[in-house]
Amino acid sequence: MTSWKENIYFVLVEPKESGNIGSSARAIKNMGFKNLILINPAPLTDEAYWMAWASKDILEKAEVYKELDNALKDKAVVVGTTRRRGSKRGAILDVRDGVKRIYEISQDNRVAILFGREDKGLFNKEVEKCGYLMTIPTSELQPSLNLAQAVLIVAYELMRCEEIKDFHMQRQFYVDQQELNKFYERFFSVLKKIGYIPDNPDLEKRIINNFRHLFGRTALTFWELRLLHGICTHIEEKLKD
Amino acid sequence: MTSWKENIYFVLVEPKESGNIGSSARAIKNMGFKNLILINPAPLTDEAYWMAWASKDILEKAEVYKELDNALKDKAVVVGTTRRRGSKRGAILDVRDGVKRIYEISQDNRVAILFGREDKGLFNKEVEKCGYLMTIPTSELQPSLNLAQAVLIVAYELMRCEEIKDFHMQRQFYVDQQELNKFYERFFSVLKKIGYIPDNPDLEKRIINNFRHLFGRTALTFWELRLLHGICTHIEEKLKD
Repeated sequence: MTSWKENIYFVLVEPKESGNIGSSARAIKNMGFKNLILINPAPLTDEAYWMAWASKDILEKAEVYKELDNALKDKAVVVGTTRRRGSKRGAILDVRDGVKRIYEISQDNRVAILFGREDKGLFNKEVEKCGYLMTIPTSELQPSLNLAQAVLIVAYELMRCEEIKDFHMQRQFYVDQQELNKFYERFFSVLKKIGYIPDNPDLEKRIINNFRHLFGRTALTFWELRLLHGICTHIEEKLKD
Repeated sequence: MTSWKENIYFVLVEPKESGNIGSSARAIKNMGFKNLILINPAPLTDEAYWMAWASKDILEKAEVYKELDNALKDKAVVVGTTRRRGSKRGAILDVRDGVKRIYEISQDNRVAILFGREDKGLFNKEVEKCGYLMTIPTSELQPSLNLAQAVLIVAYELMRCEEIKDFHMQRQFYVDQQELNKFYERFFSVLKKIGYIPDNPDLEKRIINNFRHLFGRTALTFWELRLLHGICTHIEEKLKD
């Protein structure tokens, strides 16, 4: 784990549903974070531990406070999340922009991200402690994310600030244009041999371009290129018969 | 609601937990989508409706099928989601890249996005139906997202595609799975005739799957399908000589 992630604190303010606390713990760990702070939470029931699944350690290490201020003392920046837009609460950043600042600041400083109550969100006195607010864009038809969903998306967006080098994404290598051109040359000569490409330069060019588009759009793996060469070989052999 | 969103179908394959189905419905609606398809789902209990919250309409309108194929017939492209990386399943795209293609294609074509079982994910036979796979990067410490969380992030990333204004959108209509399957049948029979497909069921299946991946990933236009049928015709005629 990189150190900036250890500077991020997810703060749930008076969460009422134990299951939400567990799901939030899971979301935090899914994205490689580990600090959960609970302000006056509902008692942690079995459901919280069940929803946390393989993230019980996050729950067990969570700091619990009665007063939000006590949780914020050693944090450099406090960022709030809100579902309300166009409110008089000052600048509200799109989460995708908001996390960028958190990412920068957290390189060397502790940052608290506040999530409000399931029903009432953050109170004004809590919003006032925030350097800025972020919101997650949602559909007008059903704008309300549940608490753990909001935590997940903020954690996800924050994790994505870092280049993917931490993650073992499967690297996919495609053949380069040189290999591709060699294949095209051979493929088109086979198409001519089977009489598929007509004796008309314009039409020929058009058909060739169509296939260049098809394979060019796809990007071929080396294995796929071998398969296609194999087909050419078999057609050529049949033509010899 | 914009029409491209109506071309997106979130397909849960044999979801076992009713609550997950409800949470997924909510996530879909949160991000402005509305099509949910369930393949052999667990019975929808009160928990599903409770978790769906203000998204009961999505649950109520969900299409339910016994066979995945029946759900895919009229979809131009099928995309799978997987948590497995480094597998032999072919190209796996980061969700952030994968949704871009879905966004483009869904402007004029129906796209199915498959989500596997909570415990076992998608089976190989289901993966084989996919043009490509996407994965959501997560921490190695707790890589496993729950089903509804995965649906949320895919829906969220897809919704976010729309804001990218400098997207070079070109309208394109692709053939659906039914047409594609007809072509595959013909193509593979030609490959057999030219001796390309060996007399070994395992190898045959593997080769066929490779081609399904290649063309499935690309999404074929009607014109390209005609070109490919044309090649088959010419090979068949040559074989008659």
